[in-house]
Amino acid sequence: MKNNPRNLRHGRDRRAATKASGGFEVIYGRNAVLESLRAGKREFSEILVLPQHYDDLLEESGGVPVRIVQKPDMDRITSTINHQGIAARASVYRYADLKGLYPLPCIVLLDSVEDPQNLGSIIRTAHALADAGIIIPEHRSAPVSPAVLKASSGAAEYVKIARVKNLRTAAQDLKKIGFWIVGLEAGASKDISSAPVFEKIGIVLGGEDSGIRPVMASELDLLVGIPMKGSFNSLNVAQAAAIALYELVARVKKK
Amino acid sequence: MKNNPRNLRHGRDRRAATKASGGFEVIYGRNAVLESLRAGKREFSEILVLPQHYDDLLEESGGVPVRIVQKPDMDRITSTINHQGIAARASVYRYADLKGLYPLPCIVLLDSVEDPQNLGSIIRTAHALADAGIIIPEHRSAPVSPAVLKASSGAAEYVKIARVKNLRTAAQDLKKIGFWIVGLEAGASKDISSAPVFEKIGIVLGGEDSGIRPVMASELDLLVGIPMKGSFNSLNVAQAAAIALYELVARVKKK
Repeated sequence: MKNNPRNLRHGRDRRAATKASGGFEVIYGRNAVLESLRAGKREFSEILVLPQHYDDLLEESGGVPVRIVQKPDMDRITSTINHQGIAARASVYRYADLKGLYPLPCIVLLDSVEDPQNLGSIIRTAHALADAGIIIPEHRSAPVSPAVLKASSGAAEYVKIARVKNLRTAAQDLKKIGFWIVGLEAGASKDISSAPVFEKIGIVLGGEDSGIRPVMASELDLLVGIPMKGSFNSLNVAQAAAIALYELVARVKKK
Repeated sequence: MKNNPRNLRHGRDRRAATKASGGFEVIYGRNAVLESLRAGKREFSEILVLPQHYDDLLEESGGVPVRIVQKPDMDRITSTINHQGIAARASVYRYADLKGLYPLPCIVLLDSVEDPQNLGSIIRTAHALADAGIIIPEHRSAPVSPAVLKASSGAAEYVKIARVKNLRTAAQDLKKIGFWIVGLEAGASKDISSAPVFEKIGIVLGGEDSGIRPVMASELDLLVGIPMKGSFNSLNVAQAAAIALYELVARVKKK
């Protein structure tokens, strides 16, 4: 079977699996796969490993069949060379309902973050620092793809992420139930460290190029910025998110 | 000439240029190239652009010859597909002398940060937030390659980065001239927000996997951590660096 390329073609396999159940995808990356197995939120049809990772994986497989593949096959199945030798065929990522995020003390609203690396980094930081939820819009955002799962180092399995048609409406809903909506933007006149403590906070971050769109800016209760020293614009959005979550949520909470 | 593949081979071109002067390299990425031109610290032998970027580049070229190339050639010359349509043949990155960093109020010492993306992100953040210098060791660290320049969004052209044989000796030298050396590590018992204000601070960050090595840990005046909420280990080193620079330098400075 290994020598029949038709059994190894990524596109073919995925289409077949999608027909079989709610939909499967190939996830990859050591932490991405291991945390997905540990979190227990997905179904797995198989785990794929390079020969040198076979022993590591057996103890973590939880009864899911483990198939050894060679590197060229792994590259093709995962459509990347960044698989770290471990992949799995798993049911597709399940987003949370927006209402499932309401009990959280902090929600990050991402307005047009289109880079999968940045989205993954923000998910990882939201989990590590603040146990925060995340809302992304259906358009103008990267979805929680296998690349994003890997960039999040598996944290996307633990963070509640809602995907909504309209980010502005979601912000309005959050305001109705007591969230304060705070936007972060380079060059804002108010310093982020001057922000008061909010019991429930929604943090709006703009995209890599565009910043917060006017339609979202009109929903903000407060706009703050991180003071900059450099000769040219600005922090990466993932770094800005880390500082915002630290200053507005993690740092405050421990007082 | 465009149809002669020998003129377009990256390896050949670089070797020839290296013989001609102190050494040239191919840098790429829109901000990387534009900030390098603006910073004025390198020599340029030519700028390479895809046809659709030709007009953008002409005003910024400052007299450096601009050559239009097609995408397959650009991919080959830059050895990547992430060139954003703009590249340049420039004299190699010049590190700063360690002593050139002594007047700075903040220096980041990177102990084994091997991922070019992370190194680039940290350089960008050091520039944007704190006007900090950076010290990397010759071994166990990514060098400031064109990939790192791009990941820094061009900030590596402005940040003083010293590359030393021995990071521990560099830390000892900094202590002799009044720097306090503070290490950041997940799980440290002291919270980073409890750190006092230091007039001159060296911040030691460990590598992606290994953390701060014992030989460096023995030089620390203080070890602090960022409080974590998540169910599993930890922030990415670039995110941790952003928070550390914010909390220990940028935030303090504005008081």
